[in-house]
Amino acid sequence: MAGTNSEQVLLAEGPAIILVEPQLGENIGMVARAMANFGLAELRIVNPRDGWPSEKARAAASKADHVIDGVMVYERLEDAIADLNFVYATTARFRDGFKPVRSPVTASQTLRQKFVAGEKTGILFGREKSGLSNEEVALADEIVTFPVNPAFASLNIAQAVLLMSYEWMKSGMEDLAAVPFDAVEQTPATKTELIGLFEHLEDALDARNYFHPASKKPRMVENLRAVLSRRAFTSQEIKVLRGVVSSLDRFQRRWAAKDVKTGAATGDGQDADGNAETA
Amino acid sequence: MAGTNSEQVLLAEGPAIILVEPQLGENIGMVARAMANFGLAELRIVNPRDGWPSEKARAAASKADHVIDGVMVYERLEDAIADLNFVYATTARFRDGFKPVRSPVTASQTLRQKFVAGEKTGILFGREKSGLSNEEVALADEIVTFPVNPAFASLNIAQAVLLMSYEWMKSGMEDLAAVPFDAVEQTPATKTELIGLFEHLEDALDARNYFHPASKKPRMVENLRAVLSRRAFTSQEIKVLRGVVSSLDRFQRRWAAKDVKTGAATGDGQDADGNAETA
Repeated sequence: MAGTNSEQVLLAEGPAIILVEPQLGENIGMVARAMANFGLAELRIVNPRDGWPSEKARAAASKADHVIDGVMVYERLEDAIADLNFVYATTARFRDGFKPVRSPVTASQTLRQKFVAGEKTGILFGREKSGLSNEEVALADEIVTFPVNPAFASLNIAQAVLLMSYEWMKSGMEDLAAVPFDAVEQTPATKTELIGLFEHLEDALDARNYFHPASKKPRMVENLRAVLSRRAFTSQEIKVLRGVVSSLDRFQRRWAAKDVKTGAATGDGQDADGNAETA
Repeated sequence: MAGTNSEQVLLAEGPAIILVEPQLGENIGMVARAMANFGLAELRIVNPRDGWPSEKARAAASKADHVIDGVMVYERLEDAIADLNFVYATTARFRDGFKPVRSPVTASQTLRQKFVAGEKTGILFGREKSGLSNEEVALADEIVTFPVNPAFASLNIAQAVLLMSYEWMKSGMEDLAAVPFDAVEQTPATKTELIGLFEHLEDALDARNYFHPASKKPRMVENLRAVLSRRAFTSQEIKVLRGVVSSLDRFQRRWAAKDVKTGAATGDGQDADGNAETA
């Protein structure tokens, strides 16, 4: 989806993302893009199979060049996490160890707290096919796992990074219902405007004998008004609707002038327009 | 990451995902995989550029065959949403319309409520390069947008679907801190076992004149015990630690028997072991 605003400040802070022996440059690039989407920038790679730098990674990063340019490559995982204070390992499998297992929401809140406290943190992601080894998980403080469909739990590495990056972004938001833009605030029309619409429409309908038989008219008007007031129209919307009524009214009255009684007698007007009683 | 458990029930319910004129089969496949990861199964496609079926889509779906096999293809968006009661449009751009804009969290809660009430819902995703047109957005009830980095807001279509699918899954969870598996509950050792470790270690250190000068011994013991009790060891861990102390103790006492005073006098014992006072 389009929508990047290059005049905005580029967010680039938070935990380091550490990929252990990734195989495909495309995946590394998509990881970089996912990080950039949600304000992360520090990407570390342990033994990329196809070497580094990688043109495939840069292409797949879709202009997340600041992440690609800053990549650090290591031979050993121990070196890649040497300067960090706290590390999560991501895994979809139960490990027979004693490390606490956290949801992405909990883990992101922990990472945010540590970030605020000035600690350096990181998140480990394993190989495309085999994930992290037990020895690699053992280097982490805690485990994070995703609430996936149990029968289809295998997440692509870039998607796993995306989810953690997204939760990282959310962990810094006070209101999870907040949106970056919204529709313009709509002021409902005054009741004078609304009643003007009612009367305009009812007059046009009356001219066609829509309210038939006369004994049912009060109930039909009531239902029609309920339909028209269930949503609070704005002044502008009322103007549009009155324009529509006026337009229909002019045309129909010319046609109906010589034939109004026949049309009314067969009840066509009510059925074709949708009987207000059933609304 | 590995971890699929094919004996588990396959989740396949919730809103339809509707892709409007997607260009690449690979993206459609990654969308199917993301849906399967989080329990969605109903994929509808309007005018896929490269036709349907697509072998590239199937390959990229990584065995989400139940989603690929169930794909419905439409020529017009109007037909693709004809049977739905409520539709979201995803967009990263402000639209000059009057539709409410929701966060993924809010939108997923709404979709879950409507699902429980028996309504049929869907989420629209636009073209890779240009997203949805204003006319297409106008067919939706509300807009959903992602809390992205303002300076890098362009989300890949499969990643956008992944985030909505993930939030859909979370909207059905009572506890967002819940995890599908966790470490085995650890019972802390009894204080008898813990004090046994303290005394075992302190005896071995005493034999090497570690607590030097004698006036500092109480403070050094206190610090050492604080280090060893900050985390609640289990019985098994205490056994492991006492085995380590025993092993070091045997070796060192043989070596130290003739030389213990020299070593102690230079303070090597304290520095090399990490002085307990600084812990």
